[in-house]
Amino acid sequence: MNAVVLLSGGLDSATVAALANEQGHEVYALSFDYGQTHAVELDAARRIAASLKVSEHRIVKIDLSQFGGSALTDRNIAVPETPTQGIPITYVPARNTVFLSLGLAWAEVLDVQDIFIGVNAVDYSGYPDCRPEFIKAFEQMANLATRSAVEGRKLTIHAPLIEWSKADILKKGTDLGVDYSQTISCYQPDSAGRACARCDSCRLRAAGFAAACLPDVTRYQPGRKP
Amino acid sequence: MNAVVLLSGGLDSATVAALANEQGHEVYALSFDYGQTHAVELDAARRIAASLKVSEHRIVKIDLSQFGGSALTDRNIAVPETPTQGIPITYVPARNTVFLSLGLAWAEVLDVQDIFIGVNAVDYSGYPDCRPEFIKAFEQMANLATRSAVEGRKLTIHAPLIEWSKADILKKGTDLGVDYSQTISCYQPDSAGRACARCDSCRLRAAGFAAACLPDVTRYQPGRKP
Repeated sequence: MNAVVLLSGGLDSATVAALANEQGHEVYALSFDYGQTHAVELDAARRIAASLKVSEHRIVKIDLSQFGGSALTDRNIAVPETPTQGIPITYVPARNTVFLSLGLAWAEVLDVQDIFIGVNAVDYSGYPDCRPEFIKAFEQMANLATRSAVEGRKLTIHAPLIEWSKADILKKGTDLGVDYSQTISCYQPDSAGRACARCDSCRLRAAGFAAACLPDVTRYQPGRKP
Repeated sequence: MNAVVLLSGGLDSATVAALANEQGHEVYALSFDYGQTHAVELDAARRIAASLKVSEHRIVKIDLSQFGGSALTDRNIAVPETPTQGIPITYVPARNTVFLSLGLAWAEVLDVQDIFIGVNAVDYSGYPDCRPEFIKAFEQMANLATRSAVEGRKLTIHAPLIEWSKADILKKGTDLGVDYSQTISCYQPDSAGRACARCDSCRLRAAGFAAACLPDVTRYQPGRKP
């Protein structure tokens, strides 16, 4: 059975793609060139798509930087290098809503009823659109939005990692053969795709490898270690 | 109070923009260059935005034609010139979901809690994403998706025309001073923006002017009349 998998190039979505594969889905991977300042993650998405032998990998251009409002889409807003309170400035307004909507559009054209997204519990605390109630509400909306819905085919939004820790994700993915050295989680990698070791995302990732007792295969910038 | 209004260049969204204005909103108009074969509607959107003196008019590029699946985004699929059964081939997969999502992204950056969309009862019969239950479900999802939602500010999706006939829309808009000669409803206008008089959208529009006892100010292609 075919499934659309949102593939960012980070470790979560790479794991989700491998999970979808394990569950017997043919993977249609969808990535977004959304004006992210860290566009090398698209190279990572291409490498992951190739290594997982997905049926198709599509990169859709949608420039969210024209709206701004996030350190990930506006070069004038610095990525924080120490933990912050509340919703982080790296939150991109309505990003998962926009990405899932475009996933829904492709799923409808492909006549696919399963969409996978790699949101997880660690992001949960900070990003509103990574919470289980958001995913559930999106699924309900999607089941009223499309031709499939009118014709009675049920669409499911799968967020299998939503309650997992980073360590659990890394352990499962490693079992499934995901090569995490191919993935990029850093919010401000250099042009060679090497991680800063300082942003939220780098810290969460490094702590995940440590908690999973796995070697941290991340490529860091020279002289940087988490 | 500021509001984001989705502005297509057609008669419904022009009326909605005028209604939002009448209700005291400053209008932030959002249009989409989505790979529609009838891109002259963007010129219409620009004219309408100018005549309504909106606070800002933004045109976002998002190429839905790469997904295909609709006569409005795929030049190889003909626009029907006679009424059809079921969901018309002019339905664009997940279009309103994608457009509302991008409206939500902009609304969040602007800190705006009101989004207007010109879906209406006539489309209702054919397009799944023009139904009241879809709009309601989108609103529920949006109220879980954003920073505003987490902070307790309620977002409203306004679809004021949803139960109106085309005649009611045209009468109200005329009262509000909307110049419908500026709008384009046709699914296959010529390069000068003149209507075909044959597609579903032209037929509904012409019938609306007739039912409202208003002169049909549509510019038709030479030799064409509905």
